[in-house]
Amino acid sequence: MATPTRERILGTTTELFRRQGYNGTGIKQIVAGAKAPFGSVYHHFPGGKEQLGAEVIRASGAMYALLLPAVFGPAPDLVSGARAFFRLAGEHLEASGWVDACPIATVALEVASTSEPLREATRDVFDAWVADGTALLAEGGLAEDVARRLAIGMVCALEGAFVLARAGRTTEPLQAAGELVAAQLEVELSRL
Amino acid sequence: MATPTRERILGTTTELFRRQGYNGTGIKQIVAGAKAPFGSVYHHFPGGKEQLGAEVIRASGAMYALLLPAVFGPAPDLVSGARAFFRLAGEHLEASGWVDACPIATVALEVASTSEPLREATRDVFDAWVADGTALLAEGGLAEDVARRLAIGMVCALEGAFVLARAGRTTEPLQAAGELVAAQLEVELSRL
Repeated sequence: MATPTRERILGTTTELFRRQGYNGTGIKQIVAGAKAPFGSVYHHFPGGKEQLGAEVIRASGAMYALLLPAVFGPAPDLVSGARAFFRLAGEHLEASGWVDACPIATVALEVASTSEPLREATRDVFDAWVADGTALLAEGGLAEDVARRLAIGMVCALEGAFVLARAGRTTEPLQAAGELVAAQLEVELSRL
Repeated sequence: MATPTRERILGTTTELFRRQGYNGTGIKQIVAGAKAPFGSVYHHFPGGKEQLGAEVIRASGAMYALLLPAVFGPAPDLVSGARAFFRLAGEHLEASGWVDACPIATVALEVASTSEPLREATRDVFDAWVADGTALLAEGGLAEDVARRLAIGMVCALEGAFVLARAGRTTEPLQAAGELVAAQLEVELSRL
């Protein structure tokens, strides 16, 4: 069964945002990539590129949220889970030719001061990731406030590492950021 | 004495990049902001927007590098310096209406897969910041490899915190990221 046009538009836009950001991506390029008629973007997304962008951000955010339990679940402990998370992110980024990092961050920085609907979409995604991370770390025994601080720190370290890794084409920032998170986790767990 | 046209173009472009990124900034907007004739951009920057962008990235990077000694210099120790650095970054960001974070990161993510000259400019800025941070931490007694890992981690944590802080309009990510860095610094210093 062929993928419906709406899904193809969402998939193509996700890929284009990741590679070249929101402002660098035009409707023409989206319909060409999705093999869809030009008017179909406005048919499926009456709010145009801004509505499409917000949907892409929310859908990507929900999909990437699955990576947290997928990596931490099989890990023997939280510290190993954190190290594995950053190592796998680095390996995946390198294998993708330094393209496939976070699908949200580029757009988040582009729109933070220029589009409220898009800024709110990126904020909601980060909030959801932090909530998931907080729950995971609290299950591991950390107090709620400590778990939240560490979950925020983990998302910050990962997002920043993606910036440096893509600029320098090296996984070294992901290793360094992973060690930062692992070190604070070890400190907090040793206090329990 | 009036600011020369070339300097005005560089200053306006820096401000526009910070607010709306590279792709969201057009030559028309730059010349309007700089009160410069349209052709002046190509007169001063024969390579056009890409050359102008690379110069803005390198100049901003050199200017922001001054913040490291400015904040760590008066601090009683490295851990206090790190906490102060993240606290001041958060206060400055909030005071600017959540605009004035890193002048490099938005462009770095936009161009990482689309422009080699611009990607290299962002890489060189991050490399210089990491080298400065490594030297600062090594002076504080850390082994060179530990100092480098922590310096990379500090830049990652800061860059990622800016992404979350601008998206959520809160300084909480800068506090969390600062604690992450302070915690690993304390661990490493306690081993000396």
